[in-house]
Amino acid sequence: MSPTYKNVHIPRATIQRLAVYLQVLESLKGENVEVVSSERLARACDVNPSQIRKDLAYFGEFGVRGVGYNVAKLIHSIKVSIGTDRIWRTALIGVGNLGRSLLRYQGFPKRGFKIVAAFDCDPFKIGEVVADLEVMCPRRMKENVKDLRIEIGIITTPSDRAQRAADYLVESGIRCILNFAAARIQVPPDIYVEYVDFFHHLYALTFKYCVGEASSTKQIGQS
Amino acid sequence: MSPTYKNVHIPRATIQRLAVYLQVLESLKGENVEVVSSERLARACDVNPSQIRKDLAYFGEFGVRGVGYNVAKLIHSIKVSIGTDRIWRTALIGVGNLGRSLLRYQGFPKRGFKIVAAFDCDPFKIGEVVADLEVMCPRRMKENVKDLRIEIGIITTPSDRAQRAADYLVESGIRCILNFAAARIQVPPDIYVEYVDFFHHLYALTFKYCVGEASSTKQIGQS
Repeated sequence: MSPTYKNVHIPRATIQRLAVYLQVLESLKGENVEVVSSERLARACDVNPSQIRKDLAYFGEFGVRGVGYNVAKLIHSIKVSIGTDRIWRTALIGVGNLGRSLLRYQGFPKRGFKIVAAFDCDPFKIGEVVADLEVMCPRRMKENVKDLRIEIGIITTPSDRAQRAADYLVESGIRCILNFAAARIQVPPDIYVEYVDFFHHLYALTFKYCVGEASSTKQIGQS
Repeated sequence: MSPTYKNVHIPRATIQRLAVYLQVLESLKGENVEVVSSERLARACDVNPSQIRKDLAYFGEFGVRGVGYNVAKLIHSIKVSIGTDRIWRTALIGVGNLGRSLLRYQGFPKRGFKIVAAFDCDPFKIGEVVADLEVMCPRRMKENVKDLRIEIGIITTPSDRAQRAADYLVESGIRCILNFAAARIQVPPDIYVEYVDFFHHLYALTFKYCVGEASSTKQIGQS
């Protein structure tokens, strides 16, 4: 089943919340909940019900008024909408601490992804087996991308090697890149890139904390 | 120096972009660039110059018209604005694959954070030394939070242990929580929580790819 994408300009925040909805819906499914009201779903996701309805409206009509959402159907519909109703085959480049931790992470298939190859240019790592995958030289990437039908590349190299890793991925025909390295990369315009940087979450914490403490001090001062 | 926070409702997207600006500015500083135009900074950050000016305007006046931004000063000002002009002492709970990889990650101090304690309830892990830290039982958290002046807790447990980890952190007096576990947590209203879930970046990739391919197929079909 292929969605119609009636609106292709979905805000990033909506995609971000869809990830939360999926996570909560999966855990409701695990608890054998079959139908959930938008109020309950909203509470569990920490958003308001109208936001959920608005986010889902980008992708079509969901839920039955006065009844709620069928959990299994909604999970499936969201997955179809974002293209994860199938497994995306991915390759990882950069087998350091983070790379190893992702290779060993069990949560990928459930979310629609599978790491099928690992690359590193360090001769001491090539040939090593991590999470059942033999680490390969990036020079062998092109043949592997074709043979293993790899569509997404995950960069977990140190920041100064991220561009070279991106070049390898692009030259091998990969169109989607998830970059964990702390560096911006240059790629042709037809390549999709996403940057993962969890520090902005830490900054959001420190910022909220500073603002919160400043305003409570002010309140104390004023009282 | 304490910022005034003339506007405490900073959009999340702005905080997210500040993280990018900081990353790019730090690498410019590493290349001994002293002054950068908003155009050059914008290009390197992949945003438009007016966005940068708008984002920075939340925190005050920066840059000299026609000259640009002093790199070192702007880095310092952004850090002051988000509260990372000092080191935040953090504790990590859950010494699994991800926990170990974060404990070994060298990038924290440069960004304003230091992991000073690691906890895990697995008796086989307690006492183990990871990245110079001895893994401790969470029952010893409260005394350590006080002695080690810990302000931020990082949860890297499996999803079904995230709530218990959060409870330990809150009971120990920690007010800021960064949760990497794939589960929502319940905390009192005065606790700040941020969720890290890199899957929404993967969803953004698969979504953009599906939309892109659907529209290019359509174009081919129409030509």
